[in-house]
Order: sequence, then C-alpha cells, then structure tokens
Amino acid sequence: MEYKISDKLAALKPSAIREIFKSLSDPTIISFAAGNPSPLSFPAEQLAELSADIFANDSTAALQYNITEGYPPLRRAVAERMKEKFGIGSENDTTIITTGGQQGIELACKALCNEGDVVICENPSFIGALNAFRSNGAKLVGVPLADDGIDTVKLEEALIANPNAKLLYLIPTFHNPAGITSTLENRKKVYELAKKYEIVILEDNPYGELRFAGENVPTYKSFDTEGLVIYCSSFSKILSAGMRIGYVCGPDEIISKMVVAKQVEDVHTNVFFQMLCYRYMTEKDLDAHIMKIRALYKSKCDLMVSELEKNMPDCIKFTRPEGGLFLWCTLPNGTSSAEFIKKALERKVAVVPGTAFNCDTEAPSDSFRLNYSMPSDEDIVRGVGILADLAREMFC
Amino acid sequence: MEYKISDKLAALKPSAIREIFKSLSDPTIISFAAGNPSPLSFPAEQLAELSADIFANDSTAALQYNITEGYPPLRRAVAERMKEKFGIGSENDTTIITTGGQQGIELACKALCNEGDVVICENPSFIGALNAFRSNGAKLVGVPLADDGIDTVKLEEALIANPNAKLLYLIPTFHNPAGITSTLENRKKVYELAKKYEIVILEDNPYGELRFAGENVPTYKSFDTEGLVIYCSSFSKILSAGMRIGYVCGPDEIISKMVVAKQVEDVHTNVFFQMLCYRYMTEKDLDAHIMKIRALYKSKCDLMVSELEKNMPDCIKFTRPEGGLFLWCTLPNGTSSAEFIKKALERKVAVVPGTAFNCDTEAPSDSFRLNYSMPSDEDIVRGVGILADLAREMFC
Repeated sequence: MEYKISDKLAALKPSAIREIFKSLSDPTIISFAAGNPSPLSFPAEQLAELSADIFANDSTAALQYNITEGYPPLRRAVAERMKEKFGIGSENDTTIITTGGQQGIELACKALCNEGDVVICENPSFIGALNAFRSNGAKLVGVPLADDGIDTVKLEEALIANPNAKLLYLIPTFHNPAGITSTLENRKKVYELAKKYEIVILEDNPYGELRFAGENVPTYKSFDTEGLVIYCSSFSKILSAGMRIGYVCGPDEIISKMVVAKQVEDVHTNVFFQMLCYRYMTEKDLDAHIMKIRALYKSKCDLMVSELEKNMPDCIKFTRPEGGLFLWCTLPNGTSSAEFIKKALERKVAVVPGTAFNCDTEAPSDSFRLNYSMPSDEDIVRGVGILADLAREMFC
Repeated sequence: MEYKISDKLAALKPSAIREIFKSLSDPTIISFAAGNPSPLSFPAEQLAELSADIFANDSTAALQYNITEGYPPLRRAVAERMKEKFGIGSENDTTIITTGGQQGIELACKALCNEGDVVICENPSFIGALNAFRSNGAKLVGVPLADDGIDTVKLEEALIANPNAKLLYLIPTFHNPAGITSTLENRKKVYELAKKYEIVILEDNPYGELRFAGENVPTYKSFDTEGLVIYCSSFSKILSAGMRIGYVCGPDEIISKMVVAKQVEDVHTNVFFQMLCYRYMTEKDLDAHIMKIRALYKSKCDLMVSELEKNMPDCIKFTRPEGGLFLWCTLPNGTSSAEFIKKALERKVAVVPGTAFNCDTEAPSDSFRLNYSMPSDEDIVRGVGILADLAREMFC
C-alpha cells in the first residue's frame, strides 16, 4: 500500500542533532555535538535512596494513573520554587508538569496555532522547538540574534508583516545554540512589542539555573504583568535528562488547553519520577547540587574558551558563555560551515552545523555549535587543537 | 490579553472520565467509573529489586538522554514477544516505544491526518483516542458496533462517503467501553474493506493479554499481509499504568514519521522505566504475572456479572466480557442514561456516561460503563445493588 503522510510531517526531517547522536557510536570520535548534561550532574545515589523508599512506602500511587496536570505535591513545590527564587508566577498563572521541557513547547504551539499560523523565532534557535512548531503545521519566521538578544527592529518588522503570528519563541538565557544571554533592556523592549502586537511569548529556559559567571537577568515571566508569557523549563539539566520531567507556568486559560492536549498525548508524565523529583526537592539540597553542576561546567567552559583563545586563529569568532552547555563558533566572511564540519568529522571531531538551527532549512550557515558539558578535559584540549589546525589550514 | 486558542483545541473538552477521576476524592462514593488497573497488578517488590540494581550498576544510562525510538533492548524484547506469542510484525514493520499506548494513537493520527481529514471509529469508542484525533483537527465518523464487532455494511458506507478517511480506529479485543470482542470473521471482512478502500487500520489492543474466558481471536496485525495495520499496546494494564510505557508496531514508512513527531513531543520515553520493563521481561516471569492478573479480574468480573444477573431487572442489558476491565450496560427503549447516572451519583455510585464515548459529542446515549478492576468485592456487591434498586424504581 502507498501511504499518505500528513503534509505537516511529510516535509519534517529528523533532528540533525539526534541523528548525529545516533552516529556517535564510534568511540574514537571526539564529540562536541551532544546536547547532553554531564552524567556527573545526576545525583544517582540520592535518587536510588529515595526510590527505594517510594517503592517501600508509596508504590501503589507511584505505579498507578494520576492526573494529567502532574503529581500535585510536585506542582506545588515547583511553583513555590519558581516564585521564591525567580519571582515567577502570578495568581492568573498555573503550573503543570510536562514530559520534559520539550512537551511544554509543543503543547504551547498546539494550543495557540492553527496550521499555517506563524511562530516568530530567534534565528538560529533550538531545533527541537522549531520542529515542534513545524510538526503542528506552523510557519516559522526567523529574526536574527544580535549580541544583546533578538534584533528588536527586525522583530517589529516581522510582527507587522505577520499579523497571523501567534507565538514568539525565545531562549533569552544561555541561548541554544548561540550561547547568548539577552540583556534586560532588550527583554523590556521585546515585551513592549509583544504587548503592542498582542502576541504570546514562549520563554524557554532549560539552562537558566546553570549560570557560572556574570549577573542574573530577570526572566520575561518575572515581569509579565499582562499575562503574555508561557514559561517552560525542566529538571533535565539539573537532575536527570532521561527521566523527562519538565514544567510550564503560564496563563490559566492557555494552560488549561495545554492540559487537554497533554491528556491525549500521554495522559500524564511518569508518576514515579514525579514523586522522586518532589522528594529530592524537599528532602535533599537541590540548590547545593546545582552549585556543584555550575562549578563543573564553569571549569569545562573555561577550559574550552582558553583552548580556543590559545589555538584558534583570530578569524574564527566564538561566544564566551556565562552559563548553559554551548559555545557558538563563526567562520570568517560568511563562509558556509559545511565543508569545515565535514573535514572536522574526517579528523574525528564532531560538531553540530549551524544549518540545523536555522528557521529556513535551506539557508546556509557560517557557524557551528560546540558542547563542553560532555567531553572530558583531555578531549576538549585535543578536539579544539584539531579544529584550530583545520581552521588555520582552511581560512587563515 | 485576550488569548486565541487554536480551532482544534478550542472545542475540545477534557475527558469526562479523567474529570470524574479527579472528583472521586469523596471516599464514600463507590466508583465503577475508573479505567485503572488494580494496584494488585503492579509487581512492586520485583520492580523495587530491579530498580535498585539499575541504580547501582547502570545509573548513567538510565538517567541520560537516549534515542527517540526507545531503549534498544526493550524494543527488541517487545518485538520478539509480539512475534512469538501473537505472530505480530513482518520484516517491513518497526517497533518503537511510546509514552503509554496513548501516545502511539496520537502519533499515528498526526502522521497520517491533515486537519479536516476523517478518522473512522467504532461508536462508542475510547474517549482518549477520539480526543487525540480531535486534537489533531481530524473529523470523526462513527460506525455502530454490533455484537460481533463493527457493523461492516455501515463501515463500507462510511468508507464510500468519506474518501478523505485516513485512519480506521478499532479496539477489536475487550472493547473499551463496550466490552465486546469482534469475531475473526468480522475482522477478516473489515480487513478486506480496508484493503479495498486503501485505509490504514489503527489497532488498539491495551487489554489483549487480559483474557480470562473464551478463545483468543487473532489480532489484525497478525494477518496483516498488506502493511495496512498500525498496532498499539502498552504495559499499563500488566505492569504499571503510571510509568507510561507503551509500544507501536507498524509499517516502517509510517513509524519513521511517528518517530519524528515523537521527537518533538517528548524526545523519548522515561529511560529508567524502559530499562526496568526490559529487566522485568527478561529476568522475571511476565507470563506468570499476567496469569495472576487474569485470575483476579476473572473473579471480579464474575462477581459483577452474577450480582447484575441476580439483582438487575431484565430490562437492563449488559455485556459478559471475556477479558479487559469493563462492562457496558444499556437502558431499555433507548432511554438517555443521563438521569439514571445523575441519580446513581446522588446515591454514591459513580459510572461513566455513554455520551463520553460518542464520536458525536452532542448525541445522547442509552448506556453507561462499569469498571470491575478497581472496586473491592464488597463495593461491587453494594454498588450493583444500589444501581439495581434505582433501575427498578425508574424503569421496570
């Protein structure tokens, strides 16, 4: 039989990152391509201890169906933590638990976009989000990133040109892939534009707690007096990525529709791990654990930056992140990065091509993304050396 | 700000069942409204033992990201078990792990249906599936259920009348809510129609292993020579519902698109519990465990049927299930069941109205669903007594 795939999925390619992830079975490859947190960031022993206790004392609830919105004590704990630490959440907001931060992004689009509606995104942006929007039949309009955040002049042009834009997707802090954190001034301007053009902001903040340098910048959600912001985050980078526990805080009216959509996607998120998260938050010291992860990533990022500074020819530009997992490198004179990346892989160093993060999948990119959370210190030194040699041969 | 909800979600109501589930906090209510497996069906001690071992020896893999298709050893174990026990899966098929059986249903629709395309369903049918189709903007066309399965004459009429029908959704075994198992003859006829009209069958079989009486009937997938069938099932009713582990077996070409869609919904399913499932399947005796669940449900179902036979006036019809979790009761002369259900709830017995399972949400129903897996034996006796008294007062 000849199958007819839906229009929205027919054109959608698997994420280049996850395809690279699958091909990394060759152990001689140095991978800067991952988006994974370091396994050192998983508090396995403490989770094991709490798990044993859940099995011993609460197994029926942990293994049975629960409500779609999430395990109530975890919802409350997450909402309280967001409020106390980050000033997030008003009385018109609701917090729900999602199957990873990814599901929050996808549900927000499903709740607000008809097929053909526009989602305005930073360009480049997180491919998982871009593909989530595409999988809902939304059209992407990319607005370039400047050093201080999304280009607000071009953003206003995009808002005027696309009256059917329903969502403005932003990763303001430790941007993936670009490594940028937008300034408060930029955020305030963007918020005013969102208010003026009546568009909902989807603020994706998976790395926000991983700041290891510089000063905190308030999230959009923390100054969201108008109910414009849906805020997504997760435990993937601070407890475990594999457990798939995320959360969303946003206006009741939208969240209630996201709950209906979640109900028919997976009924609810794994209950056992929701309980485990809750127990960890209330019985262990999550903040102290996060401090350890920050120190680890600071040391890895510092090493990668210093190796790049020492070895990379000046014609290659790269960001100096203050947190998160990624560095963003740009080749000189707008050269497409495809050839460089191919040759790097031949020399056994894997990076992610900038094209993977483009709103327009046909557009070229002069950039690529480097991850520093996963490789060993030794691999960082060796891998950057190989990339620097290649860059000198090719460009400078 | 005034929010504009997408057309496909604006009209979608939360599942009546899950809303009832939430309202059942009153402990004096006897609930026949659940869809939950009995907590006695969760092998908590064995899962605890295996969990401790995973934390001790494999915690990094269990807590890290993995591939979207599912934990490879679990995929293989599930595919092998389906093949060996049920003859399911050809060389053109692929098996993936989903976040509950629910996600398989939703992804199948997303992969095959554009907004406005038709999904043909048994009427009544599983509300979670109907709402999954609605949430993708599909239109539902209901075909009545006869005693031997979907009405094949009306099905052919529906196929002729709806050339844009992309999916035929069926729960052939221990139907939810109707409790019917369709005959092999009926299945063969339906399969021929699907072949003739080139429509993909989505076979949902969450209860298939819970047969406690009668003879096995081959699944559609087991005689699917043409690659017409996507088969969904899960571990929810045999290991744990709360862990959300399901699986789908279907033609490569469709499954590969479902994988892309899953990637942007939740990246992958909880890895720890995928490993736990795999360990349970290979180190414990799943079949022996399922035999215990069957014996439990047989005893509960027998009790409910015998109490209904003893007490219910003859004008009330009900099914005699050979497996699964549900009985389906029908009031005399097409009377709407709304008033009966309301009065039953006043007398502290909760059931699910048949309207919740209608393809047409405005259509009335003369039926309601009873669950026997969750209530205690005492509650089954008392609750059926209350329903029978009410039926006598109202109808006979």
